[in-house]
Amino acid sequence: MVSLKDVAQRAGVSIKTVSNVVNGYQHVTPAMRERVQRAIDELGYRPNLTARHLRKGRTGIIALAVPELGNPYFAELAGAVIDAAAQHDYTVLLDHTGGRRDKELLVCQGFRSHVMDGLILSPIELESADLLARTESSPLVLLGEREYDAPFDHIAIDNVAAARSAVRHLIDLGRRRIAFLGARRESAREPAHLRLRGWREELTAAGLPADDALVVATDGYGREDGARAMAALLDGADRPDAVFAYNDTVAIGAMRTLADRGLRIPEDIAVVGFDDIEEGRFAGVPLTTISPDKEAIARLAVDCLVERLSGGASTEPRRARPGHRLVVRESTAGRA
Amino acid sequence: MVSLKDVAQRAGVSIKTVSNVVNGYQHVTPAMRERVQRAIDELGYRPNLTARHLRKGRTGIIALAVPELGNPYFAELAGAVIDAAAQHDYTVLLDHTGGRRDKELLVCQGFRSHVMDGLILSPIELESADLLARTESSPLVLLGEREYDAPFDHIAIDNVAAARSAVRHLIDLGRRRIAFLGARRESAREPAHLRLRGWREELTAAGLPADDALVVATDGYGREDGARAMAALLDGADRPDAVFAYNDTVAIGAMRTLADRGLRIPEDIAVVGFDDIEEGRFAGVPLTTISPDKEAIARLAVDCLVERLSGGASTEPRRARPGHRLVVRESTAGRA
Repeated sequence: MVSLKDVAQRAGVSIKTVSNVVNGYQHVTPAMRERVQRAIDELGYRPNLTARHLRKGRTGIIALAVPELGNPYFAELAGAVIDAAAQHDYTVLLDHTGGRRDKELLVCQGFRSHVMDGLILSPIELESADLLARTESSPLVLLGEREYDAPFDHIAIDNVAAARSAVRHLIDLGRRRIAFLGARRESAREPAHLRLRGWREELTAAGLPADDALVVATDGYGREDGARAMAALLDGADRPDAVFAYNDTVAIGAMRTLADRGLRIPEDIAVVGFDDIEEGRFAGVPLTTISPDKEAIARLAVDCLVERLSGGASTEPRRARPGHRLVVRESTAGRA
Repeated sequence: MVSLKDVAQRAGVSIKTVSNVVNGYQHVTPAMRERVQRAIDELGYRPNLTARHLRKGRTGIIALAVPELGNPYFAELAGAVIDAAAQHDYTVLLDHTGGRRDKELLVCQGFRSHVMDGLILSPIELESADLLARTESSPLVLLGEREYDAPFDHIAIDNVAAARSAVRHLIDLGRRRIAFLGARRESAREPAHLRLRGWREELTAAGLPADDALVVATDGYGREDGARAMAALLDGADRPDAVFAYNDTVAIGAMRTLADRGLRIPEDIAVVGFDDIEEGRFAGVPLTTISPDKEAIARLAVDCLVERLSGGASTEPRRARPGHRLVVRESTAGRA
């Protein structure tokens, strides 16, 4: 059977490039695409991606479970994971948990395990004890801000450092009353605790008050939550001059409330989000945000799983830290 | 083994309610959730959703292939399909095709067919001939605006009527030069042709020019495409006083360009989108749009597949028409 490698050799390109063409990637030049296509046609290559997995007793499917697809961050991340998995001839079974503990437990315990080789999970409510109690033996890679004392690979950016850089940016702009939008009501399970810690540390380092009245709890992390949290903050005694939101959707909701109240962004209140979803770039006031390297997160997660599946990884759980950067736009810097 | 039905009987609720609780739905009251949970605990029910499928030689997995997850419409639709599938104990394997013909063909031809019972596909480039040439025997349900002369179930709202109502709304507001943003360059494969036809028909019916100079082609249907198309339109000879965009992301891109050029929405140019993604509601100027009934689309698609899988459906292909409505917001009506 003609392989990806045969096509790569014939076309004189890397296997990755052939895979990119076969999987319909955007970032391939038309000339390169034509060259690879010619080799595919000449050799009569037919992508039979499953055969190789089946020979090894695998299904060629990995599961990705995120809290919600309605949040563009997770939709964008899911797209990146699908693309990263395709590089290894893996297909992704995507599920959303609603951030609910029962659904997270179900997924974690190997729901549909007969059809999947491994799981990438971004948990909200799961505890370390839940993970330690896992009996399912297929590999599990964790994503996201929750910290676990359990022997599983975990991919997460440095949330404390990222949050500190966002708050630092606001302080550098002269803001003094910087609110945090998007803590959870039950502090015992605080998914936002690292970003909140970063907020607190940076304010304290600058000699500014990390006032609890400036921390607004929300039920979730959507636009509605942000809009309501901003309204609650504005109805309070002492108005902030800046807002650091848990994520971009909360920030976008907050900006909607500010517009409805006739407040100017950033003149009256500056806003910083977190996630760098495309929506923020196109918002009425383009949103300053922390941009996590989503491609790196996706690639590292898939690489970890694939390594575990090929038995080549050490038994030590991996802690990988993809990069992040602050992207400054009008919601803090104003119009150029 | 304890079944969903046993739990429903013990709790004195419908099977659907139990399924809602097990699958972690939002719209269940805490009291109801507790009642169902008590029955689950008492009976020792463990959701073993796969057993029933495996007994019938099925995997319990259906595939959903959409053009792109980065478009919130498809992310929201995917969420609705996952929820609708869960009602039938099905899990969804989600893939994105990039709207590319090769990937669509791959998916359509039963890529990974050993692990999936059926496919829901929203095609962009696929032709009727491609569908007629399909050799894979598992059920296929089509979504979206493309029209096919092929014996497959097809779920789509009435795009012509929806587009006409959007244009009618702009005419009623006194707009006379109404542009269409988001046609494709190659007219032979015009995924937007029904919405474009609706635009043309309604203008003609009103005695207004359906001027080709008012139709702007784009490479894709994203925010960047909309921003560029709007810029091209504004750089042209004759400015429009309203824009009807192929979808909300194109409309949101267009609104960004209008803001950058210092034009007022809707005073200078009114904007209508299509899809009713949540982002439009929270946009700098909340977006008037056509709201397709996404839950109905998802439910009808899953119901069609499940019917085909249980052999209970007639062999006639079904044409289902979920509803839609015009949602008027500030981008046409201005601030209240």
